[in-house]
Amino acid sequence: MNTDTTDHIILGIDPGTNIMGYSLLKTHARNSEIITLDVINLKKQPDQSAKLKMIYESTQNLIETYHPDILAIEEPFYGKNPQSMLKLGRAQGVVIGACLHAGLEVFEYTPRRIKQSITGKGAASKEQVAAMLHTMYTFSTETKYLDATDALAAAVTHHLQNRVVLNTGKASGWEAFLSQHKDRIIG
Amino acid sequence: MNTDTTDHIILGIDPGTNIMGYSLLKTHARNSEIITLDVINLKKQPDQSAKLKMIYESTQNLIETYHPDILAIEEPFYGKNPQSMLKLGRAQGVVIGACLHAGLEVFEYTPRRIKQSITGKGAASKEQVAAMLHTMYTFSTETKYLDATDALAAAVTHHLQNRVVLNTGKASGWEAFLSQHKDRIIG
Repeated sequence: MNTDTTDHIILGIDPGTNIMGYSLLKTHARNSEIITLDVINLKKQPDQSAKLKMIYESTQNLIETYHPDILAIEEPFYGKNPQSMLKLGRAQGVVIGACLHAGLEVFEYTPRRIKQSITGKGAASKEQVAAMLHTMYTFSTETKYLDATDALAAAVTHHLQNRVVLNTGKASGWEAFLSQHKDRIIG
Repeated sequence: MNTDTTDHIILGIDPGTNIMGYSLLKTHARNSEIITLDVINLKKQPDQSAKLKMIYESTQNLIETYHPDILAIEEPFYGKNPQSMLKLGRAQGVVIGACLHAGLEVFEYTPRRIKQSITGKGAASKEQVAAMLHTMYTFSTETKYLDATDALAAAVTHHLQNRVVLNTGKASGWEAFLSQHKDRIIG
């Protein structure tokens, strides 16, 4: 039973220290397609303040260009050191601020939840997540897009998350992939 | 020699999990006065997203009302746990995003630098910082304003920091306070 026919445009952002990955995913009920997927290079910015400003302005440009209604971000591991967490938190805060200002709803997902949603396994490797995303969507395998797959993974997780509500009983994620591609299973 | 006669309005913000302290300091060369000093209660917000939204909107309101040109914030201790640092980083990021968006310059100061600038001692206690601020400015000693003194301390540090450039050779901070108030020294 599929009752939610609301269209959404989900902005996924992964703001790192040197690279900000982003993706925009257009969804309609159970269907989704990538509008764009790219990275912004922050390396040349002279200091943290300039980086944060670029992150803010880039987020704002994405909102103005693509009109997303949802932001999906990854809630990072708490295992990192406090200084890294502060920097990451500030970068995410700048993104969140720009999105809240523009009226987007903000959702965050743990790395485990993202891996679980996309591959069916919470302990999946980055490669398994990327492989699954490549079977779901068409996008370049260029190195620079690898930095954007984390952003895409967060957006896709939000989409799949909503699909749980719309569940028709079919398997999804990695289990479905395996059952639908038995020829790819080795051994 | 005092050549900088530029007027500044410095916004100091200390965004905590439950209370956001803020202050606005108007400066003219070596002089400064408090425009306002207060706290915003975040406790009633249902979740982190709502708190961040309130922090963003409150910051934006302060900018629109008082037209500050500078944001001064405290760079926190890295000794806290990673989860706290992420939350604090996000809260600061939301403030920084709103300020960069409005064209403010952003400056941050370590707790040690703030204590050093205001009292002359990097290892000063919170009480010594508050006592010094009370000798410099007139503001209520109501409990709720205690949460705002960290925000004021950051703003004052930026002001005193600029005064270093304008140094006339006179002592400032705690040393100056002691030399100017010998009657208050016990023993």
